[in-house]
Amino acid sequence: MIRYDNHPSGRHFLQIPGPTSVPDRVLRAIDRPTIDHRGPEFAQLGLSILGRIGSIFQTREPVVIYAASGTGAWEAALVNTLSPGDRVLMAETGHFALLWKRLAERLGLQPEFLPGDWRHGADVNAIHARLADDRQHAIKAVCVVHNETSTGVVSDIGGVRRAIDAARHPALLLVDTISSLGSIDYRHDEWGVDVTVAGSQKGLMLPPGLSFNAVSEKARAASKHATLPRAYWAWDEIIAANRNGYWPWTPATNLLYGLDAALDQLLDEGLPNVLGRHARHGNATRAAVRAWGLEILCADPDAYSNSLTAVLMPDGFDADAFRRVVLERFDMSLGTGLSKLAGRVFRIGHLGDFNDLTLMGTLAGVEMGLRLAGVPHRAGGVDAAMAVLSGAGEASATAKTQRSVELA
Amino acid sequence: MIRYDNHPSGRHFLQIPGPTSVPDRVLRAIDRPTIDHRGPEFAQLGLSILGRIGSIFQTREPVVIYAASGTGAWEAALVNTLSPGDRVLMAETGHFALLWKRLAERLGLQPEFLPGDWRHGADVNAIHARLADDRQHAIKAVCVVHNETSTGVVSDIGGVRRAIDAARHPALLLVDTISSLGSIDYRHDEWGVDVTVAGSQKGLMLPPGLSFNAVSEKARAASKHATLPRAYWAWDEIIAANRNGYWPWTPATNLLYGLDAALDQLLDEGLPNVLGRHARHGNATRAAVRAWGLEILCADPDAYSNSLTAVLMPDGFDADAFRRVVLERFDMSLGTGLSKLAGRVFRIGHLGDFNDLTLMGTLAGVEMGLRLAGVPHRAGGVDAAMAVLSGAGEASATAKTQRSVELA
Amino acid sequence: MIRYDNHPSGRHFLQIPGPTSVPDRVLRAIDRPTIDHRGPEFAQLGLSILGRIGSIFQTREPVVIYAASGTGAWEAALVNTLSPGDRVLMAETGHFALLWKRLAERLGLQPEFLPGDWRHGADVNAIHARLADDRQHAIKAVCVVHNETSTGVVSDIGGVRRAIDAARHPALLLVDTISSLGSIDYRHDEWGVDVTVAGSQKGLMLPPGLSFNAVSEKARAASKHATLPRAYWAWDEIIAANRNGYWPWTPATNLLYGLDAALDQLLDEGLPNVLGRHARHGNATRAAVRAWGLEILCADPDAYSNSLTAVLMPDGFDADAFRRVVLERFDMSLGTGLSKLAGRVFRIGHLGDFNDLTLMGTLAGVEMGLRLAGVPHRAGGVDAAMAVLSGAGEASATAKTQRSVELA
Amino acid sequence: MIRYDNHPSGRHFLQIPGPTSVPDRVLRAIDRPTIDHRGPEFAQLGLSILGRIGSIFQTREPVVIYAASGTGAWEAALVNTLSPGDRVLMAETGHFALLWKRLAERLGLQPEFLPGDWRHGADVNAIHARLADDRQHAIKAVCVVHNETSTGVVSDIGGVRRAIDAARHPALLLVDTISSLGSIDYRHDEWGVDVTVAGSQKGLMLPPGLSFNAVSEKARAASKHATLPRAYWAWDEIIAANRNGYWPWTPATNLLYGLDAALDQLLDEGLPNVLGRHARHGNATRAAVRAWGLEILCADPDAYSNSLTAVLMPDGFDADAFRRVVLERFDMSLGTGLSKLAGRVFRIGHLGDFNDLTLMGTLAGVEMGLRLAGVPHRAGGVDAAMAVLSGAGEASATAKTQRSVELA
Repeated sequence: MIRYDNHPSGRHFLQIPGPTSVPDRVLRAIDRPTIDHRGPEFAQLGLSILGRIGSIFQTREPVVIYAASGTGAWEAALVNTLSPGDRVLMAETGHFALLWKRLAERLGLQPEFLPGDWRHGADVNAIHARLADDRQHAIKAVCVVHNETSTGVVSDIGGVRRAIDAARHPALLLVDTISSLGSIDYRHDEWGVDVTVAGSQKGLMLPPGLSFNAVSEKARAASKHATLPRAYWAWDEIIAANRNGYWPWTPATNLLYGLDAALDQLLDEGLPNVLGRHARHGNATRAAVRAWGLEILCADPDAYSNSLTAVLMPDGFDADAFRRVVLERFDMSLGTGLSKLAGRVFRIGHLGDFNDLTLMGTLAGVEMGLRLAGVPHRAGGVDAAMAVLSGAGEASATAKTQRSVELA
Repeated sequence: MIRYDNHPSGRHFLQIPGPTSVPDRVLRAIDRPTIDHRGPEFAQLGLSILGRIGSIFQTREPVVIYAASGTGAWEAALVNTLSPGDRVLMAETGHFALLWKRLAERLGLQPEFLPGDWRHGADVNAIHARLADDRQHAIKAVCVVHNETSTGVVSDIGGVRRAIDAARHPALLLVDTISSLGSIDYRHDEWGVDVTVAGSQKGLMLPPGLSFNAVSEKARAASKHATLPRAYWAWDEIIAANRNGYWPWTPATNLLYGLDAALDQLLDEGLPNVLGRHARHGNATRAAVRAWGLEILCADPDAYSNSLTAVLMPDGFDADAFRRVVLERFDMSLGTGLSKLAGRVFRIGHLGDFNDLTLMGTLAGVEMGLRLAGVPHRAGGVDAAMAVLSGAGEASATAKTQRSVELA
Repeated sequence: MIRYDNHPSGRHFLQIPGPTSVPDRVLRAIDRPTIDHRGPEFAQLGLSILGRIGSIFQTREPVVIYAASGTGAWEAALVNTLSPGDRVLMAETGHFALLWKRLAERLGLQPEFLPGDWRHGADVNAIHARLADDRQHAIKAVCVVHNETSTGVVSDIGGVRRAIDAARHPALLLVDTISSLGSIDYRHDEWGVDVTVAGSQKGLMLPPGLSFNAVSEKARAASKHATLPRAYWAWDEIIAANRNGYWPWTPATNLLYGLDAALDQLLDEGLPNVLGRHARHGNATRAAVRAWGLEILCADPDAYSNSLTAVLMPDGFDADAFRRVVLERFDMSLGTGLSKLAGRVFRIGHLGDFNDLTLMGTLAGVEMGLRLAGVPHRAGGVDAAMAVLSGAGEASATAKTQRSVELA
Repeated sequence: MIRYDNHPSGRHFLQIPGPTSVPDRVLRAIDRPTIDHRGPEFAQLGLSILGRIGSIFQTREPVVIYAASGTGAWEAALVNTLSPGDRVLMAETGHFALLWKRLAERLGLQPEFLPGDWRHGADVNAIHARLADDRQHAIKAVCVVHNETSTGVVSDIGGVRRAIDAARHPALLLVDTISSLGSIDYRHDEWGVDVTVAGSQKGLMLPPGLSFNAVSEKARAASKHATLPRAYWAWDEIIAANRNGYWPWTPATNLLYGLDAALDQLLDEGLPNVLGRHARHGNATRAAVRAWGLEILCADPDAYSNSLTAVLMPDGFDADAFRRVVLERFDMSLGTGLSKLAGRVFRIGHLGDFNDLTLMGTLAGVEMGLRLAGVPHRAGGVDAAMAVLSGAGEASATAKTQRSVELA
């Protein structure tokens, strides 16, 4: 008997910042018989998805969908646009920025890592300065993680765009939105992003296994001259086949069923409402953390993430010991601290198919876990979050939503 | 497009006292192809269920399973054991006791209704007095609702048994456990119950559509002479067919798949653990209600229900208006007040496939709803429940579990 | 490990005449979280079903839906309309007519059984003669099975209606359509049926667990004076609650999800197309049986069933031994011979969610089974069926469809 | 309303040579809530799969599992073992061999394409000759498709191994088993294969979205020096993370649930039984094609595929027009002719979760389709297949199984 199928009573609280809880209607869509990926029914499925997916990226450009994890889409963004030895400017926002940099190195690129303290977004002024300094245009691309999943800090992508433009630099802008797409306002076209990298298992509310590149005309032009070897990831054949609703290789049909259903759900709710809901939940969570007297890892209030909140443990207390108490006692998974944050932070995911009462269960689990694990804190976090969701806090929550949308 | 499939974001909180949330593994079991109800595979399914279902009733006697709602099992209990015009003593514990009495009347029986105030359990002394007074043994059966779903009050079935015995009265004891089976300690054999009536959609964590009669030897003997007409409900043919794992009519195969999976889950957790969990959650809920300064409908602390808590609204406030706020704002269904309690109480279901954090989400939804609906209350209910589930309250919670098990 | 979940490779062929294969979209609908049966979403579900279910019965009268097997709906038809000791005229068409008669006896009615040879439909002339003879109108109801599931013989319900009318007899007409509804043309209103009894697990393509009474105004009037005790089955409370989309007791919510999806599928295909498809498959099956040189049990070509075909075994060969070979070797369930037909016939179900190629697999399984079991037969049955489905047989198949619709 | 969810009555026959029909228990496994891919439950899932997957490849070496289509696994096999400009010897067996060659070119390799006529397996002697001739060992790898999905021809991988050894050549042996794994006998270890490429959507009975590299020690050693850039596909990090049941990136959790269930099913049936079943079905299909008087594309009886049969159309008849008739009239998808075979062949898939009666439905659909499309043929194909599955043909079928296993 395999234990992973053997949950205790009630539903598991999957409050890591992704994969997120998959809605029942998406799971049921995935549980349909696979069809011929070259038949007329498939074309209808493909066109239904391809005609709507852009609205989530706020783009009219093609969105390439891979059967792959998000890591694959990171790779795709690079190999389609760059050539061996190319220099790329990458902003050190946290663990995932670091992983993307290592991946670039493995591919034979030369990343330059703009240092960061993992508590602020990408430094727009430093990007501007570095590009202005690059008279030869040796830098071929700027890579930024929009919402750094390891820290809960949002970078100002519109600002990065303005920095590149101000430096009159031709570098491509490549952005990872793996944990922000469908959760935090993101505008591929308006912000002039060249490649947006995304994954299925966060705001899109799907299981992992699909990933995405939204690609600007400039990126497609660059891909004609880029010489890094590529085949599976090559945009050209996919975009060509997509015109009729197909893929050049056998696509992940059942996950595409799920994506079609997830698009129904997101568009039924309406993207502004989806983003507003995440803003509300981000606000409520931060109110709880402040009430506990704990420190939010993100040091810049303008850069707070609405998909997750990373919380610093008091000195001398191990975040993973605390997470273990919460998992064993309350059947809730929280995110761990990654690389240099290991043991020092825990992360609360509040994104995807989520609502007020599930958030309250989540925060109650954290508050009770802090108590049971003997972590110094004040009570009252849950109360503070309830105030945000139900009362006096409401006005400011709404205001905050507005603001965070503006920020982006 | 049908709206009932069109939930907003996140999971609905189904906190009525039944139907309860069905675990995923039970839903998935139900979603299997139907098989030949006369074939060898079906026999294995039937025997797997029939060999284990008794343990939930704490009985070695046959448990008859109907394709029907709980109302059907009420009818079955009466038509199998009684004859037209028979006098039955029924205890008025609340709305469901009233419905059962009306059903008895429709069937041509003569129920005598022992009055109750809907805030206490069945009056054991009154039952004893009435039976002692019935020298002719005109009363053929005593009918009691173990856990009155409309009020959240538990009756002392062991005490009723002792009252009947003390009166040396031959009446059968028929007990409704629709909202207590698998949630509150219940002992068919030890308490000498003759017919136990149950349904699938509460502690058994199934959708509605199956119901049950656990039947003592004395009840089966009575059924030989009972003359109320019966066919679908007749125990004899079912018990005979069950010996080989079959039913005389086409059983509800897919719900039986679910029952088999639900038994797996209940027996994996262990019945004492299941009951202890419900006791914990009953305790925590009552702590919250007290902290809010609201009144629990059940006036006898020894009779508190661990499956649901009915809460009295302050004078002048409408429970259904409050429930509507909670439904619209927080996507949570609470139980309404029934018949004479309409508008005066709301009921919080805390039974079935449930856990600590879902309870906390539930109580947070009530607390925020009270605030938003302008119902006078004190804050702090959620905090009080957290104290029970995580801390100081723990010891007494455990003590209470013991006690409530003893009570039964 | 429970064996019933442990199918061999490929899909089981469930070719008994019900339960039938449940379409994936119906199973997936059933696999949705249960909702509050008193909430606004449930009302939408209820009204969606109640507003469409009548079209399958070809009626504008109320259709009462029970959480129960078809046997329950048999009982409901009788207890709602009759009084203890009432005389009912029942036509002996086969095993299920016999079971319905026994059920009537258990309920205290006095059935008169018009004898039949199990190879022809109900004798319309004999019904007329008996009613004409009943000057006192002692007979309160005429009960006929439309499609006798044990024999594959259809009775002429329109003819029975005309016989009753010709005798100017006030008896109610009660008809069992358990294995014909949604498969063979059936017209509740046009034929003046008073109560139509149906079940979920045949032409409606659902798992067992729901059953139906379509009730005429005359039947509802009769129910006001009928004195058989009834409660769960009572139409009045159900019809009243149905007006708002609810039920007086907790309905089988998840099976109702399935019914809603099954209605979608039937009405998408269109009832005439559904009936035409069944006629095609009946024709092809009979062509195969004739080609094998085996005898169809139904001795009247005008009474052939389009939902199932019962086939007589050659003398000295046991139908169940043959069925066992088919089950073990080809993973196909065929229907057994019932009561006096035990061992002498096997039944091929060709109803419900079915198509040409699945029928061909079914008939190939029968033909190979006959060979492997050493049953004397000629080869060529599958070829004959292919001829019907693909070629020369086509015209006559269409003609037959028309005819069989006329027949009804 | 999206049409791809709107199937006509009965089940679609998905008889392309993959994706194949996914068993219900696998679909239901995939329809489970996603879990934390870094938690203890996931490790159990991962280890359960990784401990068993090798048995299907008949290997003790690591099997690397990607979230990707089979095309991705082709790429992975090359980029992990080769360097830019490397020469590889590839056998032209058909369309998929051609695609793999083009992919190698896109990656900057220099494939040498050993010509073939698409009707025979890879030419073992030619491979030997070419390698013997390559004194400088310029050829770094030999790439062969085991079962060419476009033609239904099996190549002799053991023979290729012997050819390499006889030439004393150090080239790696890379084999595509996408449409043979779990269907046709394949022995990674015994045949000395260095990289086996496989996909989820054929013999493994899963939806598309997972793919595989089984990797020999020699292949892993080669990967240390291979300089093609790689990151997502890199074996080293995956094999390292797999030791604890994890992946370096977020794996496709829900498809892994399905893989775990598919392994249960394959190992319950037993790999030799699975292979024997496919051999039976291949035999029966070929008997049908011969009876129709049509020509099997595969010109070498020792190389017949047991997963699919490609059938040549008579001159002047368009295979796709025929396929359209079959799809529209019988709701069955057959495989199309690819590249130079377009319009000239259709392909019958008979692999995966399949059984005798579904095969008979399939062949009946082909036979009726031939008739309706006016394609010259003799009747009797279905009869010939029945003879193989049920009678005289049995002995030879068994013999054939043996032989085809030997072949491999």
